[in-house]
Amino acid sequence: MHRTVGIGGATLKRRQIVIIGGGFGGLTAAQTLRNVDADITLIDRTNYHLFQPLLYQVATASLAPSDITAPIRWILRRQLNTTVFLGEVRSVDVARKIVRMDYENREIPYDFLIIAAGSRHAYFGHDQWEPLAPGLKAIEDGSEIRRRFLLAFERAEKSTTEAERDAYLTFVIVGGGPTGVELSGALPTIARKALYPDFRHIDTRTTRVILLEGGPRILPSFPESLASKACRDLGEIGVEVRTSSVVTRIERDAVYIGDERISTRTVFWAAGNAASPIGATLGVPTDRVGRVRVEPDLSIPGHPEVLVAGDMALVERKAEGKPPVPGVAPAANQEGRTAARNVMRLMRGQPTETFRYRNKGDLAAIGRSRAIADLGKVRFSGRLAWFFWLTLHIMYLVGFRNRLSVLLQWMYAYFTYQRGVRLITAAERRGELVPQPPPD
Amino acid sequence: MHRTVGIGGATLKRRQIVIIGGGFGGLTAAQTLRNVDADITLIDRTNYHLFQPLLYQVATASLAPSDITAPIRWILRRQLNTTVFLGEVRSVDVARKIVRMDYENREIPYDFLIIAAGSRHAYFGHDQWEPLAPGLKAIEDGSEIRRRFLLAFERAEKSTTEAERDAYLTFVIVGGGPTGVELSGALPTIARKALYPDFRHIDTRTTRVILLEGGPRILPSFPESLASKACRDLGEIGVEVRTSSVVTRIERDAVYIGDERISTRTVFWAAGNAASPIGATLGVPTDRVGRVRVEPDLSIPGHPEVLVAGDMALVERKAEGKPPVPGVAPAANQEGRTAARNVMRLMRGQPTETFRYRNKGDLAAIGRSRAIADLGKVRFSGRLAWFFWLTLHIMYLVGFRNRLSVLLQWMYAYFTYQRGVRLITAAERRGELVPQPPPD
Repeated sequence: MHRTVGIGGATLKRRQIVIIGGGFGGLTAAQTLRNVDADITLIDRTNYHLFQPLLYQVATASLAPSDITAPIRWILRRQLNTTVFLGEVRSVDVARKIVRMDYENREIPYDFLIIAAGSRHAYFGHDQWEPLAPGLKAIEDGSEIRRRFLLAFERAEKSTTEAERDAYLTFVIVGGGPTGVELSGALPTIARKALYPDFRHIDTRTTRVILLEGGPRILPSFPESLASKACRDLGEIGVEVRTSSVVTRIERDAVYIGDERISTRTVFWAAGNAASPIGATLGVPTDRVGRVRVEPDLSIPGHPEVLVAGDMALVERKAEGKPPVPGVAPAANQEGRTAARNVMRLMRGQPTETFRYRNKGDLAAIGRSRAIADLGKVRFSGRLAWFFWLTLHIMYLVGFRNRLSVLLQWMYAYFTYQRGVRLITAAERRGELVPQPPPD
Repeated sequence: MHRTVGIGGATLKRRQIVIIGGGFGGLTAAQTLRNVDADITLIDRTNYHLFQPLLYQVATASLAPSDITAPIRWILRRQLNTTVFLGEVRSVDVARKIVRMDYENREIPYDFLIIAAGSRHAYFGHDQWEPLAPGLKAIEDGSEIRRRFLLAFERAEKSTTEAERDAYLTFVIVGGGPTGVELSGALPTIARKALYPDFRHIDTRTTRVILLEGGPRILPSFPESLASKACRDLGEIGVEVRTSSVVTRIERDAVYIGDERISTRTVFWAAGNAASPIGATLGVPTDRVGRVRVEPDLSIPGHPEVLVAGDMALVERKAEGKPPVPGVAPAANQEGRTAARNVMRLMRGQPTETFRYRNKGDLAAIGRSRAIADLGKVRFSGRLAWFFWLTLHIMYLVGFRNRLSVLLQWMYAYFTYQRGVRLITAAERRGELVPQPPPD
C-alpha cells in the first residue's frame, strides 16, 4: 500500500491531481475522486478537517477543539489513491503547473488542480484591529476567543474600580451575520448561569453583550421575518442588538461608533472574510475580497485544469437574478463535488458540467433552545428549529467519536447550564506555521 | 454572597488565609478549610486544576486537555469563604506577611499562608536542552508533546531520504520514572495501530521508541520485582529500555550517550523536577531541587504561620529510615490536609500536629492493558493492575463530566485502537503569563 513515488519528486507516471485545502470543499473533492486512477495529493496547513459551523461553540467553552476536528489523513485512510501533505502553499504557477510550498521550498506538480483554500476573517483596511478584535475562522481563533472571554471575568473579579469592572463585563461582537449572532447568542446564558456561582466580587448577571451590525438589519442572508424573529430572540436572551452601527475605531478599552464610545475590554470580530491569498497568485481576476471569478464549470479563465471550490470561488448567478453563491459549508461541498467531477470528465475527454447551487436551507442557532430555519418553502423558528439545527449538525460531523462526544457535551450543558471546556490556555497560533523549536 | 472587601485592599477584619497553588496540595487545603471563619484566597496562575496523573494521555493524543482539567473556581463555587485569584506569585515576604503578585504589582496580605506551588521539570545545568526536549508538567506541555509526536510522522511522510525518515520515526524519552514509563509505553501502540493506515510513504510500524534511564534500573521508587516486570512489558510492547545510559548531549537531530549518537528528531524529558522558585524567596533552607525543608508540622523554620505542601515540601523521614516523602498526588493531598488542619489549630491556639505520610500504594500504567501496582503488602501486575489503575484514576478525577468523557474516550481507544485527539495545534505557553494583546 505504500507508494514508491515520492511527493514532489521522482518520475511521475499516473496523472497527478492536487487539492489545496482540507475543508468542506477540498475534502468532498478528494472523496469524490476516491475511485479515480490517479495520484491525488491533498495539501492542508493543518492536519485536521475543521467542522466550522460549530467553531463558535469552542469559542464559548462548550466544545473542545478535538470535538469538531478530525485528522484529514484519518478520514481518507482507506482511500489509497490519496496522500495528505501537511504544509502551507505559497503560490501556484499555472503556466508550469506547479504548486509551490513553504516547506523546504518544495514544488508539487499537477495535471489537475482543485483549489479550496477557504477564507479568513478580514478587517478591510483596518488590519490594526486584528489584535484588538480577533475573528473566528481557525481552531486557534476559537481557543483565543474562549481565552479572552473567560479571562475578562477573571480580570473583572480582580478589578479595583467600578469602571474597570464594567468594561471587563462588556462584550462587543462586531458583525450581525450568522457567526456574530451565534457567538453573541451564546454568551449571556453562560455569563448568567454557568459563571454566576463561581465569582465572589462580581455579579456576572450584569454582563452586557452588544452585537453591532453596520447594515440596517442582522442576518441579511435570511428572510426579513426570520431575521426580526432572531433579533427579538436575542433581545430576550440579553443581547443588545444595534443595527446601522458602523464601528469607526477600536481601542484597547473601547469601541467607537462615530462619536459614541462603548467601554469594553473584549471585542470579537465577525464582520467579514477575505479569500485565501493563494487566489491572487493565479493571475486571473478576483473580486474585492479576493475570491476568484470562476467559469460556470468552476475552472479559472484560460485554465480548464485548474478549478476553484468553496469560499475562494466567486460563482455568479446573475442569469438567475440571484446574488453569488454564499460562502457556506453546503455550497463548498457542492462545489468540491462538481470540481472533482469535472476533473474526471476532463480525464475522460468529456465536456465539463456547469455548477448549479442547490440551496437546501439556512440555519442559525440563537442561544439556548432557539434557532431560525429557512428551508426555502418552509420557514420556522423556536425550539423546533433548534432541535433541527442540533440534529443536522450532529449528522454532518465527521466520525462516530466526535458525534458521541458532542452529543454528550450538549446534554451536559443543556441540563446543568455548565460549560465543560473552561480552561484558559495560552494564545495559540496556527499549527505548522509555528516553527518547531529549534527551527529545521 | 458577594464580599465587599476587595482582594488585597481595604480594611481586613476576618483572618486572611492565603493558599498558593490549585493543584492537589492547594485544592485539598482549601477544601479542608471549607467551614473555617476566615477569608481564604486561593491563588493560581492557571484557572484550572490539572489532574496530572493523566497528563501523559494528553501528550499521546488520547485525552483532550479539557478532560483532565476543571476550573478551580467551579470546584470551589459553593465554598463561600473562598475566593480564587488568577495570577502569578512573584515572591513571599514572610516578615511583612505579604504575597507579591506579578499582576499590577498587587500585594496580598495573609495571617496564614499555605504554599503548594508544585514543581516543574528541570534540566539541572542543561537548560539549553529545554527547547530540544520538552518536559511534561503543565497542560501546555502535554499539547506540545502531542504536537511534536504527531508532527514527527507528518515530517517523516515528507522526508526525501531514509536517514531523515528514520530520525523522524525515532522517539527518545529521557528518564525512567513513572512519567517516562507511561509516556514511552503509550507511543508504540499508537504508532503501529492508530497511525499505520493513515500514511502512504512511511511504515509507522518501524517506529522506534527508546527509553533512557541514567540509573541502573527503571522505576526506582517501585520494588525491584515490579520494575523488572515493567521493563519486560515495555520490551514486549516495543520500547527499547536502556538503563545506565546518561544523556550527555542533546542536539536538534540527535541524542548522545557519551560517544554514542542516536539519530532522532523528537526527544521528551522526564528526568527530573525542580520545585517552584517561590520557595527560594522564603529565606529558609532548600535542597538541591529547590524544595523547602519543612518542620514536622509542615511549617517553615521560624514561621509557624507559613506551611508548605505538595512537591515543594521536603518532608524527611530519617527517623523511620525512609527516603523523603515522594512528590506524588496522594502525598500532596495528605500534606494539603495536614497544613490546613494546622492552620485551624493555630487559629484556635492549639498545638500543631506532625505530618505522617501514609503510602497507599504506587501505580504505573504500561501501555495498553498492562500496569504494575505496589500496595505495600500486595503487589500485582498485568491486566488486573491495569483495570485497578483505570478505576482509581476515573474515581479521583474531578467532576462528573470529566469522568464520563474520559471513560468514553478510553472505551473508544480500547476498542478501535484509535486516538481521538490528534490535532496539531500551535506551540502553547502558559495561560495568564502570555499578555493579552495589547498588553494591559
